[in-house]
Amino acid sequence: MEGKFLSKLRGAVSLSNSLLCVGLDPDPRRLPEAVHGDVRAFLREIVSATSDLVCAYKPNIAFYEALGEEGWKVLRDTIRSIPDHIPVILDAKRADIGNTARMYAEAYFEDLGVDAVTVNPYMGYDAVEPFLAYGAVFVLCVTTNPSAGELQLLIMEGRPLYLKVAEMAKRWAEGGEVGLVVGATDPEAVREVREVATDLPFLVPGVGAQGGDLEASVLAGMDERGGGVVINVSRAVLYASSGPDFAGAAREAALGFVKRMRNCITCR
Amino acid sequence: MEGKFLSKLRGAVSLSNSLLCVGLDPDPRRLPEAVHGDVRAFLREIVSATSDLVCAYKPNIAFYEALGEEGWKVLRDTIRSIPDHIPVILDAKRADIGNTARMYAEAYFEDLGVDAVTVNPYMGYDAVEPFLAYGAVFVLCVTTNPSAGELQLLIMEGRPLYLKVAEMAKRWAEGGEVGLVVGATDPEAVREVREVATDLPFLVPGVGAQGGDLEASVLAGMDERGGGVVINVSRAVLYASSGPDFAGAAREAALGFVKRMRNCITCR
Repeated sequence: MEGKFLSKLRGAVSLSNSLLCVGLDPDPRRLPEAVHGDVRAFLREIVSATSDLVCAYKPNIAFYEALGEEGWKVLRDTIRSIPDHIPVILDAKRADIGNTARMYAEAYFEDLGVDAVTVNPYMGYDAVEPFLAYGAVFVLCVTTNPSAGELQLLIMEGRPLYLKVAEMAKRWAEGGEVGLVVGATDPEAVREVREVATDLPFLVPGVGAQGGDLEASVLAGMDERGGGVVINVSRAVLYASSGPDFAGAAREAALGFVKRMRNCITCR
Repeated sequence: MEGKFLSKLRGAVSLSNSLLCVGLDPDPRRLPEAVHGDVRAFLREIVSATSDLVCAYKPNIAFYEALGEEGWKVLRDTIRSIPDHIPVILDAKRADIGNTARMYAEAYFEDLGVDAVTVNPYMGYDAVEPFLAYGAVFVLCVTTNPSAGELQLLIMEGRPLYLKVAEMAKRWAEGGEVGLVVGATDPEAVREVREVATDLPFLVPGVGAQGGDLEASVLAGMDERGGGVVINVSRAVLYASSGPDFAGAAREAALGFVKRMRNCITCR
């Protein structure tokens, strides 16, 4: 049976005809002048300019913690400004021992009202399980940063660690809704992970500012039904323009990505 | 040259004659009735009852996020209530791509004013490096949760992954102040990690409610100079009593752990 998150995601993909997720990562140093430092207003405009073009939004909690004591409220208000049918994936990369993980899970799923959270696999299943009682998780598998390979590419029994993580996540998916984070910066890894985790949804960051390959990642990541992959873009949409036209420019940038995805799906 | 964090830690160890770190993890469901739900007051009393017995405090940020929009302020106020000479290790288990990790680092070291942060090794060095520009990190190596071994015990080139992480952290220590988190629930692993990372400070959780072996961990973790290990206890101190005597009981519990450490060091 399809879980709550996946069913919501599928609905949003279908309505928007898009696999685009926009990362809501407000960097105070990059806000357009027109918003006069008002992070909430900036994000509200971005959401309102892009909500018909996306299948999900992904706020990274670091950018809200950086706002200090106002941060939590800004994050909650931003999540509330997102139309109800669009799933929210909180990029938190958490994992902790059971009683502590439960604290995070309650805060994110109940207080903030998100639909999914990114988690880190290093501590194993019981550090992730408490999240599954509330909603979905995306497990870090292949990340987009330059040092990603330091641990993730270590070889065991002839295969890189990230494929072990993909196998683990597949087992974890028996206990709830589990997906994988697989960066667009390595489309060949996306393909390999898809071979291992045939049914898991992928969250694919790294397109845009980080230079990942959108088309190759969509093609490598799609499941057998032509879905199962969500492409995240943050900076290339948010900061498409620093002028007073920032919201229109964000929409144009988002639309550019969406068109490339649509082409890519119809042409495979 | 000894770094800022290690030098502060050494001063606090020497002044308290203790290796005890108390975890400041306020669970609203376990607060003593006497504080009438006032988390700030609870923590202030705990700090004031134990500050001459500890070499560090370790708030886990999950418990503050669980307080919602008040959480950040409670955390900052709690950190400010800690005497200046005692280092604060923020248990956050973070790691993220460079520009995002910098957001976390600024929030923790500048806004909250902590001295060290726990980090997760899965993403590699550049996800940790931004923290080192501000202060110290403790890298998760062997964690105390039941599923810890799922990833950490995977064998590569005849050795468990956690020893690879210890070697990595040793290299990372060339770029700043780096320690390791090694759980007391596996003293043999503590000994092995000490053989690899001879000079790195260890943060050792898992004593108390989690049943780790204090004496074995201190003996296995001490460096050649008889230091380099910080033993964390959270619940067994915080919730030593749920009655109006909770602060006195926390002090007694802390003192019990400290005496065992002192015995253990003089007897080796």
